[in-house]
Amino acid sequence: ATIAVLPGDYIGPEIMQAGLAVLKAAAATTNFDYQLKSYPFGGAAIDATGEPLPEATLKGAQAADAILLAAIGGPKWDDAPQRPEAGLLAIRKALGLFANIRPTQVIPALVPRSPLKADIVSGTDFVIVRELTSGIYFGEPRELAADHAIDTMVYQASEIERILRAGFELAQTRRRHVTVVDKANVLATSKLWRQIAEQVAPDYPDVTVDYEYVDAAAMKIVQQPTHFDVIITENLFGDILSDEAATITGSLGTIPSESRGISGPSLYEPIHGSAPDIAGTGKADPLSMINSIMLMLRNSFQANTTADKIAKAVAATLAAGIMPPDLGGTATTESMTNAIIEQIK
Amino acid sequence: ATIAVLPGDYIGPEIMQAGLAVLKAAAATTNFDYQLKSYPFGGAAIDATGEPLPEATLKGAQAADAILLAAIGGPKWDDAPQRPEAGLLAIRKALGLFANIRPTQVIPALVPRSPLKADIVSGTDFVIVRELTSGIYFGEPRELAADHAIDTMVYQASEIERILRAGFELAQTRRRHVTVVDKANVLATSKLWRQIAEQVAPDYPDVTVDYEYVDAAAMKIVQQPTHFDVIITENLFGDILSDEAATITGSLGTIPSESRGISGPSLYEPIHGSAPDIAGTGKADPLSMINSIMLMLRNSFQANTTADKIAKAVAATLAAGIMPPDLGGTATTESMTNAIIEQIK
Ligand SMILES: CC(C)[C@H](C(=O)O)[C@@H](O)C(=O)O
Ligand SMILES: CC(C)[C@H](C(=O)O)[C@@H](O)C(=O)O
Repeated sequence: ATIAVLPGDYIGPEIMQAGLAVLKAAAATTNFDYQLKSYPFGGAAIDATGEPLPEATLKGAQAADAILLAAIGGPKWDDAPQRPEAGLLAIRKALGLFANIRPTQVIPALVPRSPLKADIVSGTDFVIVRELTSGIYFGEPRELAADHAIDTMVYQASEIERILRAGFELAQTRRRHVTVVDKANVLATSKLWRQIAEQVAPDYPDVTVDYEYVDAAAMKIVQQPTHFDVIITENLFGDILSDEAATITGSLGTIPSESRGISGPSLYEPIHGSAPDIAGTGKADPLSMINSIMLMLRNSFQANTTADKIAKAVAATLAAGIMPPDLGGTATTESMTNAIIEQIK
Repeated sequence: ATIAVLPGDYIGPEIMQAGLAVLKAAAATTNFDYQLKSYPFGGAAIDATGEPLPEATLKGAQAADAILLAAIGGPKWDDAPQRPEAGLLAIRKALGLFANIRPTQVIPALVPRSPLKADIVSGTDFVIVRELTSGIYFGEPRELAADHAIDTMVYQASEIERILRAGFELAQTRRRHVTVVDKANVLATSKLWRQIAEQVAPDYPDVTVDYEYVDAAAMKIVQQPTHFDVIITENLFGDILSDEAATITGSLGTIPSESRGISGPSLYEPIHGSAPDIAGTGKADPLSMINSIMLMLRNSFQANTTADKIAKAVAATLAAGIMPPDLGGTATTESMTNAIIEQIK
């Protein structure tokens, strides 16, 4: 297994190092065999080459069996001609990573960390399936003039069908309930989403479907998060709703995500940003990266034994009260990581 | 004062009747002089004329000093060639109602109704200033074909400047803190928003400005709602964020909004929908309509004495434990309304 490693910026390299140390320890006990290849990406790549996604990084990512990304961006590149985020959009597009899978799960131990009341948030367990390579993120024309600006939200029917099917298939492995989120009372693209959803749904007779406007969905995520199982939505709505959803878990620093292509490697990354404010302080929570690695082990390598090892070690560490600051504890990135590695050994 | 009355659909006419009864009682004690003219709008207008915004309704609204709208839409018109919502977009555009003002205030008595924990939500008091007549709601081209669809997000610099100035001016009457919400790391229109905000901000040296991406703002509304004073944002982001924000108050059924034009009448309406599920049951909360009327009295007619009368009567009624079902009580639309009228007399 070849893994492309993109450490990125600010806390990115710190949590990547932590995650890889945990992976190494777990792999040693289970004979999971892998090779790491590290590439500059984002701000680090701009500094090194002038480009957020250098050719060699893209090539390396394309050739790998899976990609690990930590986090990119930050104030340092605010006025750079190209921003680190441009690299993220470019790699998504180049690798055809059309399905971003974002789990929102509230485990009982973390209910007290949620900003929501316990009776509302308890039992929350849903996944947002966000379209990631089309919509207003990529549509043309795009224009920025002194007196006006234009962005274009375009969807091909085939792009909509593909992501809907990915979501319906995921729902079949879960509680068989899909919520398609759109703004079909206003947008033409949303009307097409809804039409295609209505055509595709009968192919999954075991799955219940409901439709929700994006504004109503933004309400329900806060009011009644246990309503959801699988939310399928377009790129921009998915960006907003998945961050809103992550917040209600109260454990942003622990949440991984997967971006899947049609074929080729998936990309795994924490959902949080590069946190320039805590970079270098040892306060970064390594769990999001460790959870991203677990997700990679399971979904790209079917290495469930190795993933289970890590999962148990993390659970034991948390149960022992060793927690990072964002979960209310005092463990540093390093002490947290070492504690997990001790548990693995 | 001439007030155009658009009762709308489902619970719309029920809460409109309640609101107007309260207005009548309060006006009688303060000699506030007004004339009502009622027009069909939304689904009711489709039934009567085939159009959600008939010419006579638009003319009447244009000629009025203020417009009261209850709520429109519902499943009855799902397959109508024109939907009730089209009337809403059309009246916003025709009257140039470019600034939608949505207060999000959590009064101490309602903290227990919020889905958020008390320590997070207590003291929340902010206003979302949403651009309402441009962006992806109105941009051309808009296309719906079998194999693709297109929506266009366009902003003129003048449209952005106008709404920003409205927001900054509002902030000067409040805690002098503006948050401009955009997606400037991806969208050209957002980059223009941010450029213009940076140009406009120095004209309001007493106002602090910060910038937030829409996904981060969706997080912060749940995590730290007391951070905000005035949020200024474009049409679609405002739609999503203002509904999310309304939810954290736990009192959706009480929140009014104002849509302001450059000149001409403002439109006042509850932020909730027409609630087909409770229409005819007496469960509709009249407070959103009553609060809309108070807002109208203050902002369009400077009739503060009349508005104060109503405010005191509402507070006394709630303090006496008379509450609608959505606030945890058992009062009907009618009994709630009568109790408030009794307090006025
Ligand atoms: C950094 C930004 C371009 C990106 C996005 O909007 O997709 C991020 O918010 C995300 O969700 O991965
Ligand atoms: C009904 C719909 C078109 C409308 C909107 O999206 O503007 C509504 O959600 C609102 O916020 O007033």
